[in-house]
Amino acid sequence: MGVDAIRILGIDPGLRKMGWGVVDIAGTRLSFVACGCVTSNGELPLAERLRELHDGLTAIVRDHGPDEVAVEETFVNKDAQATLKLGHARAVALLVPALAGLDVAEYAANLVKKTVTGVGHAEKRQIAAMIKVLLPKAVATTADAADALAVAITHAQHRQARALRKALAL
Amino acid sequence: MGVDAIRILGIDPGLRKMGWGVVDIAGTRLSFVACGCVTSNGELPLAERLRELHDGLTAIVRDHGPDEVAVEETFVNKDAQATLKLGHARAVALLVPALAGLDVAEYAANLVKKTVTGVGHAEKRQIAAMIKVLLPKAVATTADAADALAVAITHAQHRQARALRKALAL
Repeated sequence: MGVDAIRILGIDPGLRKMGWGVVDIAGTRLSFVACGCVTSNGELPLAERLRELHDGLTAIVRDHGPDEVAVEETFVNKDAQATLKLGHARAVALLVPALAGLDVAEYAANLVKKTVTGVGHAEKRQIAAMIKVLLPKAVATTADAADALAVAITHAQHRQARALRKALAL
Repeated sequence: MGVDAIRILGIDPGLRKMGWGVVDIAGTRLSFVACGCVTSNGELPLAERLRELHDGLTAIVRDHGPDEVAVEETFVNKDAQATLKLGHARAVALLVPALAGLDVAEYAANLVKKTVTGVGHAEKRQIAAMIKVLLPKAVATTADAADALAVAITHAQHRQARALRKALAL
């Protein structure tokens, strides 16, 4: 990791499986650091499951020391119970980096798909295939980890444009 | 607070306003300890707002040292965005006590209303009025604080029945 590299943690929130992926970006050079999945035990009470996700994600932040964090925006659908569950998981994904003093960016799922594959409605296997092209060293064993790497890549590609817009607005 | 008193923290989750109320129960004697509202600044990013709620609630747990915690179950409605927001707030309400090693019970809003007022569809002002009767010393300045005290009272009244059921099931 060069001196000017920025380390980005991407998170794909889910109550049962929370995908995470870490990349470094130095200039336009992107490199894979690590990825995986934090899981919660569906047989435990909800409060305990959220604690499991909190503890797992806190360890990831501590171990990899990201400079910035990006979280995929929750897809709101007609199933209110599923939306509520995803809201719980997303809250943990947003809270843990905030507690570590890190900025958290959010990206809509369609933007993540479009950034990585060029198509807003790409399937999960298309994302996994593009992750292999963009990060040859990545060993994303689960779709959730691949999605999380896609979120991190999206942030890497959009942060410069955002920083510019922010500078112009000030 | 007698030696055999149990201290209960009730929480009424909300993203903008998180009501909280603390009561002691010794046998059948209920007494008011404290109540209030933790707020988040709507102009901040969501991650920061969740951090505000986390920090506020963590301070309440530290200052009042509850033995048990009760959270009102989120009302799932047709407004998916509202459901999602409430899901975020509820996640913080469940997570903070779990991080402190406390058991968290959950009660449906209708059960809380029925326990405190005798009616499952009571209005907020009816709950506030009954709180004044049940806890004469309570100074619940907001409806959210009164609701949180109602959640704590509900837990106080149901915990013995639950403990009995649990003992019989083992």
